[in-house]
Amino acid sequence: MKRRIYLHMESPEKARELFLSRFDLPNLLAPEEIATAAARGRVTAAPALARWSSPAVHQAAMDGFAVTAAATFGATPESPRLLAVGQEAFAVNTGHTLPPGTDAVIMVEQIPDPDADPITVEAPIFPWQHVRRVGEDLVAGEMVQPEGVAITPWAQGALLAAGVHRVAVRRRPRVIIIPTGSELTPVGDLSPEPPPGRLPEFNSVILAGMVEEAGGLPEVRPIVPDDPGALTRALKEAVAAGDVILINAGSSAGTEDYTHQAIAALGEVLVHGVAMMPGKPTLLGVVAGKPVIGNPGYPVSAVLSFEQFAAPLIGALAGKTPAPRPTLTVHPAQNLPSKPGLTEFIRVTLGRVGEKVIATPLPRGAGTITSLVRADGLLVVPALSEGLEENRPVAAELLVSPEDIDGTLVVLGSHDNTLDLLATLLRRQDPRLRLSSGHVGSLGGLMALRQGRAHLGGSHLFDADTKTYNVPYIQKYLADVPLKLINLAWRQQGLIVPPGNPKNLRTIADLTRPGVRFINRQRGAGTRVLLDYLLQEQGLKAQTIQGYDREEYTHMAVAVNVLSGTADAGLGILAAARALSLDFIPLLPERYDLVVPESTFQDPRFQTLLTVIRSPAFQEGARAMGGYDLQDCGRILWEQ
Amino acid sequence: MKRRIYLHMESPEKARELFLSRFDLPNLLAPEEIATAAARGRVTAAPALARWSSPAVHQAAMDGFAVTAAATFGATPESPRLLAVGQEAFAVNTGHTLPPGTDAVIMVEQIPDPDADPITVEAPIFPWQHVRRVGEDLVAGEMVQPEGVAITPWAQGALLAAGVHRVAVRRRPRVIIIPTGSELTPVGDLSPEPPPGRLPEFNSVILAGMVEEAGGLPEVRPIVPDDPGALTRALKEAVAAGDVILINAGSSAGTEDYTHQAIAALGEVLVHGVAMMPGKPTLLGVVAGKPVIGNPGYPVSAVLSFEQFAAPLIGALAGKTPAPRPTLTVHPAQNLPSKPGLTEFIRVTLGRVGEKVIATPLPRGAGTITSLVRADGLLVVPALSEGLEENRPVAAELLVSPEDIDGTLVVLGSHDNTLDLLATLLRRQDPRLRLSSGHVGSLGGLMALRQGRAHLGGSHLFDADTKTYNVPYIQKYLADVPLKLINLAWRQQGLIVPPGNPKNLRTIADLTRPGVRFINRQRGAGTRVLLDYLLQEQGLKAQTIQGYDREEYTHMAVAVNVLSGTADAGLGILAAARALSLDFIPLLPERYDLVVPESTFQDPRFQTLLTVIRSPAFQEGARAMGGYDLQDCGRILWEQ
Repeated sequence: MKRRIYLHMESPEKARELFLSRFDLPNLLAPEEIATAAARGRVTAAPALARWSSPAVHQAAMDGFAVTAAATFGATPESPRLLAVGQEAFAVNTGHTLPPGTDAVIMVEQIPDPDADPITVEAPIFPWQHVRRVGEDLVAGEMVQPEGVAITPWAQGALLAAGVHRVAVRRRPRVIIIPTGSELTPVGDLSPEPPPGRLPEFNSVILAGMVEEAGGLPEVRPIVPDDPGALTRALKEAVAAGDVILINAGSSAGTEDYTHQAIAALGEVLVHGVAMMPGKPTLLGVVAGKPVIGNPGYPVSAVLSFEQFAAPLIGALAGKTPAPRPTLTVHPAQNLPSKPGLTEFIRVTLGRVGEKVIATPLPRGAGTITSLVRADGLLVVPALSEGLEENRPVAAELLVSPEDIDGTLVVLGSHDNTLDLLATLLRRQDPRLRLSSGHVGSLGGLMALRQGRAHLGGSHLFDADTKTYNVPYIQKYLADVPLKLINLAWRQQGLIVPPGNPKNLRTIADLTRPGVRFINRQRGAGTRVLLDYLLQEQGLKAQTIQGYDREEYTHMAVAVNVLSGTADAGLGILAAARALSLDFIPLLPERYDLVVPESTFQDPRFQTLLTVIRSPAFQEGARAMGGYDLQDCGRILWEQ
Repeated sequence: MKRRIYLHMESPEKARELFLSRFDLPNLLAPEEIATAAARGRVTAAPALARWSSPAVHQAAMDGFAVTAAATFGATPESPRLLAVGQEAFAVNTGHTLPPGTDAVIMVEQIPDPDADPITVEAPIFPWQHVRRVGEDLVAGEMVQPEGVAITPWAQGALLAAGVHRVAVRRRPRVIIIPTGSELTPVGDLSPEPPPGRLPEFNSVILAGMVEEAGGLPEVRPIVPDDPGALTRALKEAVAAGDVILINAGSSAGTEDYTHQAIAALGEVLVHGVAMMPGKPTLLGVVAGKPVIGNPGYPVSAVLSFEQFAAPLIGALAGKTPAPRPTLTVHPAQNLPSKPGLTEFIRVTLGRVGEKVIATPLPRGAGTITSLVRADGLLVVPALSEGLEENRPVAAELLVSPEDIDGTLVVLGSHDNTLDLLATLLRRQDPRLRLSSGHVGSLGGLMALRQGRAHLGGSHLFDADTKTYNVPYIQKYLADVPLKLINLAWRQQGLIVPPGNPKNLRTIADLTRPGVRFINRQRGAGTRVLLDYLLQEQGLKAQTIQGYDREEYTHMAVAVNVLSGTADAGLGILAAARALSLDFIPLLPERYDLVVPESTFQDPRFQTLLTVIRSPAFQEGARAMGGYDLQDCGRILWEQ
């Protein structure tokens, strides 16, 4: 079992420099000549010079009559000139070629009776009046578009106006993507069920899209199994056919990572391992003068590594300078420690709460592709730093528009399945608005409100002493914040169990039976508070439950533990059980409220959300999900 | 001759509101289901929910050995556990499915000898350590992508990971473009020479590109001649086939503008004429429930009208909110009066000179498509304003990136054909740099330097008293500015005449002959100063030259007057005559210098330009253009 170690890990900047400087990028690909009409977005490879003048003929610049200016000299209302239509005066519209011999246009508005013949001219006009003369816009030989500039639709127009029907442009590099891995199956082959023991190969779709966005032409090759000979052959073929080769994955230090071997056999490895996270197992090399990139296998690593190395390479070949992402000053919602020596990219959601834009971190694992999908921005922790500090301003690279961030309502707190429905309906009501929900537990939501990190909280905290929901907790943690408590729904809490309830669980007490593996929610979650209350009420000890210490952050995560057999039961809501076709043992209804500070309540964006909450569309949708009682939905239950 | 007048001209905002509110845009087109792998850039028409969890199986999160955690409990270096490979421990790489019965992964680095069998385990690991559990990223039933959001490459990946192989997206509206006008000829049909009496139809190419960029699918129909029956038929067919119809042009008030007639016959005209410039002759209507736009004929009007009405319509149908253009505070280089009651869009070039970004207006005619190609930004003059004031800050919409503006050197002054060559070579030297040249005459350039509107000037001002170039003018107008005078070239000035020199012109005195029509340069141009000097020297009177008062701003414009027969001669440089294959009667060499303030000279961007000026590539290129003597090229001739 041979394993390779990263002997010498370069910084992303150094690695990029080592790699890109190896090639004469502007001249690596010969330019090509293509039809101007098909050249939108392409980059000129030479200055484009006008072949004709534009206009190529004298044109009327107004609707009216083309005449010889000299024929109008001396005209006055008392002594007008009469010009015969079709001989001395010719009706023309804007854009028409001037008839031979004419050199000016009289506007139709200045002719007393334009339908008469001859027409009456009551004032002289000077030569070339209301005429677009030859070359007024462009003179033959003049530069229409400089070299190295992307062709806009109007540049296409100007080129065609100047007789330039074909134009020399930078070639789009042909980027060959080689997916590798014996465990992979092509996405095209997927049956309705996930294929047993095989993983869907989707990185090539991500990379192909990014290649196109960077200005290249992607070509995805068949999956190469974990076999050094097969990979070397595939690489050799790709180098013969393409301009840039992306191998995904096969650049970590695993036994079956033959990419290093293949590149080294056919060419040279320039960089193996980059001091960035995600994206560390990146390999940069050259084979037969062509750039070869070993792209990491985890999807987030694949994307971030692509952005650092493949995108600038492809852009430089295509002649495009990728526009840097816009940035925004944000405040991290929590401390974000990071390993010194590595540049770390942290995906965050963003929302403007009060004066600040709050950055809430998403899961940092390189395998969680959804964290990129949900991310509004990226925080970059420099290699020399030990991390970012809570609430200390830092620049975020934006993945969405600043307008999206301004339109975002941030709800932090307990997870509920109807929040997705609410988000969908809110956007449908007003496409400028977004609901961003973070699942930090009910108590976490109250803390976030206290610290000004959220617009509203989602809470179902049961108080055993008063037998009420939320209010005692608010009085404890948010006593001085004017706010309203608005009900979203009553929902059914119960045991989520596998189909058929094989362990025959009926009550909380059943969880303490030997051989029953439980999956719990995190501390501060309303559901955990509820469990603890039920245990206490029935005189049961938490320690007697196997799995009490295993925590998940959402109802759905609890349900998936049950589905995949890593647990026999969890406490959660009916909607989660139903979404995964699991069985559900109802225990009790509970109240789920939105905690709405007055400042949020006055915000027109929240008022739109409230309209949506109170709409039949939301209430019917929630009812269809199962386990929701909407008798109090949208009602203000309490305020302080 | 019937003409229609704009009875009731709406503001752009009001017109857009009248038009867009007429349609139920989000629901006008039924959504479609397409392959996720082909859905990049499309907008979801419904929330996309995970069909599988991701990962769908437990996966190794590290390279190492999959084991049953319980088998390692109690292991210490003194009392290790020995696990048989292939029975109790299984070699796995990151991403591999966990073998049945295993629930944890030991990192390979923690095994003393990974090649041994059995392997030695010296520390216990807990269950699920280094395992990506089922659903860690996505749980079946969870929302992968909300409704109404554009699909990124990584969202494609997340959808495929979740088993979502087909996705419901908003349909791209099919936009049918109908070019109209008997004078037009298709660009595909163009011979090497401009077709006599016909104009190339290129607006449809511009509009098709803009339709694609807005999110629609363009379809260009054959050109419809000026015939009301033909246009009505074409519109009827288009409405049957498409979702949106763009007729170009045929919306002004000319006799042959049958678009209004056709829309009114088949449906309803909502807006005829918009209070904007360019773009006034815009027509907005509805036929059979489908939006129909009569787009103006002048290309700049066509583009700006499209942006105001067609782009938001197509975007709303496709589900895309067009990102507003970034803006930048700029200072107009001159007063820009504008007609109250009309919203005017002024194209400008932009360059950062000192602390300010200077906006220099481009030609304002709606026919000058090149003004859009050259524009770096748009200034919007509100309807209630009488114009913009010189040097008073105003927001510009950017058509290029802010980086482009920071990389721009602004040269104002006399026109010379080598400036384009210089721009090309500068960009080739450093793609971040641009040379923006404005042709305001030599004296105009000196004034611009005095007012801080340019980085450098281009000047060939001859002083008759001292028989020297530029220095006396600098001492008069820029006495207190530390600067250097750097030679660009000596160039040949002479008479530009038609091929064969039909009027047999040899000297300046010949210009006073009866029947010789001259074309002059504008006041302040070095060439005009030279002409006046030559006239004075030879005792000739300006008034005796026919055409002395007709002014053009560039050598090329003078040459095109000669080419098109509107003048028999002009004074200019050999390069201009040669570019249009005209004859040239040399009169005298003159010196063309760059006037470089010290602040510019110290600027690294200028130093790059100076390197280019002094390069063989520039000097050979200039020599090839004809009439240039480069003996002093790049030399500092004088400084103060």
